[in-house]
Amino acid sequence: MSSIDQLIAGFRAFRVSNFEHRPELFEQLVSRGQAPEVLMIACSDSRVDPALLLNAQPGELFVVRNVANLVPPYEPDGRHHGTSAALEFAVRDLTVSHIVVLGHSRCGGMEALRNSALGERFDREFITPWVSIAQEACHCADAETLAGPDGARLVEQAALKVSLANLMTFPWVRDRVESGELQLHAWWFNLEKGELWAVTDDAEPPAPIA
Amino acid sequence: MSSIDQLIAGFRAFRVSNFEHRPELFEQLVSRGQAPEVLMIACSDSRVDPALLLNAQPGELFVVRNVANLVPPYEPDGRHHGTSAALEFAVRDLTVSHIVVLGHSRCGGMEALRNSALGERFDREFITPWVSIAQEACHCADAETLAGPDGARLVEQAALKVSLANLMTFPWVRDRVESGELQLHAWWFNLEKGELWAVTDDAEPPAPIA
Amino acid sequence: MSSIDQLIAGFRAFRVSNFEHRPELFEQLVSRGQAPEVLMIACSDSRVDPALLLNAQPGELFVVRNVANLVPPYEPDGRHHGTSAALEFAVRDLTVSHIVVLGHSRCGGMEALRNSALGERFDREFITPWVSIAQEACHCADAETLAGPDGARLVEQAALKVSLANLMTFPWVRDRVESGELQLHAWWFNLEKGELWAVTDDAEPPAPIA
Amino acid sequence: MSSIDQLIAGFRAFRVSNFEHRPELFEQLVSRGQAPEVLMIACSDSRVDPALLLNAQPGELFVVRNVANLVPPYEPDGRHHGTSAALEFAVRDLTVSHIVVLGHSRCGGMEALRNSALGERFDREFITPWVSIAQEACHCADAETLAGPDGARLVEQAALKVSLANLMTFPWVRDRVESGELQLHAWWFNLEKGELWAVTDDAEPPAPIA
Repeated sequence: MSSIDQLIAGFRAFRVSNFEHRPELFEQLVSRGQAPEVLMIACSDSRVDPALLLNAQPGELFVVRNVANLVPPYEPDGRHHGTSAALEFAVRDLTVSHIVVLGHSRCGGMEALRNSALGERFDREFITPWVSIAQEACHCADAETLAGPDGARLVEQAALKVSLANLMTFPWVRDRVESGELQLHAWWFNLEKGELWAVTDDAEPPAPIA
Repeated sequence: MSSIDQLIAGFRAFRVSNFEHRPELFEQLVSRGQAPEVLMIACSDSRVDPALLLNAQPGELFVVRNVANLVPPYEPDGRHHGTSAALEFAVRDLTVSHIVVLGHSRCGGMEALRNSALGERFDREFITPWVSIAQEACHCADAETLAGPDGARLVEQAALKVSLANLMTFPWVRDRVESGELQLHAWWFNLEKGELWAVTDDAEPPAPIA
Repeated sequence: MSSIDQLIAGFRAFRVSNFEHRPELFEQLVSRGQAPEVLMIACSDSRVDPALLLNAQPGELFVVRNVANLVPPYEPDGRHHGTSAALEFAVRDLTVSHIVVLGHSRCGGMEALRNSALGERFDREFITPWVSIAQEACHCADAETLAGPDGARLVEQAALKVSLANLMTFPWVRDRVESGELQLHAWWFNLEKGELWAVTDDAEPPAPIA
Repeated sequence: MSSIDQLIAGFRAFRVSNFEHRPELFEQLVSRGQAPEVLMIACSDSRVDPALLLNAQPGELFVVRNVANLVPPYEPDGRHHGTSAALEFAVRDLTVSHIVVLGHSRCGGMEALRNSALGERFDREFITPWVSIAQEACHCADAETLAGPDGARLVEQAALKVSLANLMTFPWVRDRVESGELQLHAWWFNLEKGELWAVTDDAEPPAPIA
């Protein structure tokens, strides 16, 4: 069976389960519309689907997925900003109560950024400028540490802090955070150990929460 | 339980299932790295998580999710292009065999675009320019049809064709499609009926496949 | 990991999912008690767990599982009758609305019975007398047919009719069936093809329903 | 949707998932036959399906379910003994390595037995003689304790010890246990707290294991 036939068969399983066997959830999601409380900004990596990772049901998470789960800074220049458009829709239209930026270990995008900071040539049309959003994350430690066994994790977690800071450059995010209507979170999923860490923008070091 | 506590509890359920009870899959996904065959470009809408919709397992789908599952045209200008970066990573680094653009009914982003084509003012900093990527989709029918009961579906499906066309503007996508290494697909999920439709860029009208 | 450690890890996954992540169902099943509408009489075979086969949730099915999903006749002699005790509890205490006898292809118990009807010696302390409950099922066809490619299915389905008939020998089953409060069903699951057949006690031949 | 239509829809979901989407498991379970390592003797209660409780897959557990998960003593009298027949099939034909007797809190069968020991009249054709298999469990404590808040748990767990002892009255069980080929386990599931306890036949008091 080809991977495409496999997906279509997978859809049939979903359809029978969710439209014939237990149709209530989708009937409600159609009639009431979506009303997720959480915007999840996650990586495109095939191993970190947020719904699977967090056992979430349809309707619970509004999700952006891009390379390395990055939030760019506020640049209202009329150009195409996919992540910022989703952020705007989630915050201003859906009025979510939480934004979670979800990073993970073994992130290929962050690895490219770290290698580039360590002097490796890395020259791609779109990936290079995109991951440069988190350039500053490579200043989190000296070159020796970056190159060492903890380097990847340090950069991945520092990049989460960059995204938290960038979120606050959007005026309608900052307003809602300051008024207490919106909370920002950054989590880092350790693929090897199955741990979930919280990363905050203050002095406290990142630590496992589950 | 708050929605955040709920997600953390959901992660614990995932962790016990996938790291304690049946650890083989993630052990392999860590040791061999990811090797998805499919890039899925889906909407951020909370009701259309691709892994849930297609019963896919971790490791099977490399996923971009943005508002209205749009692919912008090729613009290698050194700026931040999240969707294009993910596309580049999937095609050039992971060498996926398939790209699926996955649209759906009741799409808020497409609704905004359609309303704007029908004369409604729609002026958002990021959403407006973002969904304008599919502007041309609103030319798929006359205003009366667009405003009618089939209008939303027609625009949603025409926008999928725009994304298919935009994919072909990326030289390393076109090359691989022409050499037969890569196939492009567009699917449209009907939330009300639980149907999956195929949309192609040729003359054949869209039709249900599952 | 040993099969026992595997089961304990499986329990932990169940516990986190059903007591930490989504505790509502079990809270309700404890506070209100069980109230299943269906008694399922199924085989002990490891491949035919009714909850998995029918996508049922905890609380939906009161289940008896014995070798070959047999219902013995009414014998109120004060001895140990496990299946009859469960039947009595389901019908008189839980007042279920449906009894489903669920057979299946490749049934080892029925195979032993058929082989014995075909002259093979089959002499086990408990299995032999137990499966003899369905002895009459071997009269459903001549020896050549029984020995042929359809023999197993014919015996398995005829045995379901014996169980339906035996159910009606219990006075408090018959009463409720005749008053319309209780319905009896017999289903046969084809393991090879994934089909579900209905078997009725009337002249109509068994046929797939799903 | 009636409960029966609901089950048939549930079967369709199972069929599509296990025969169309991921057919490998059943193809193998058909071609190789079943080879479970564990015989599970569980209660008919709708809330304690072993496959759901232990996250087990088709093929992993050979299952007997009767009222109060009881094992009667060895009585090779040529009569109908459903539980003993399943035990014989599992031990002598499938040569399982483990037998787990799985009890639980809020057991209606054990409650009837305890009430009867406390003087309540309990006179059912089949349930009364059936649960009397565990009569001895009511001697585990004085009447005041039995009537108290721990009474139900004490009787439920003492009944598990009776079943462990009864298992050893079957010569082909005892032989295999003594030769180390077969291990016996008794577990008690606490429905209120989501805990799994181990009950042993020695002096050690029952205690949670998960």
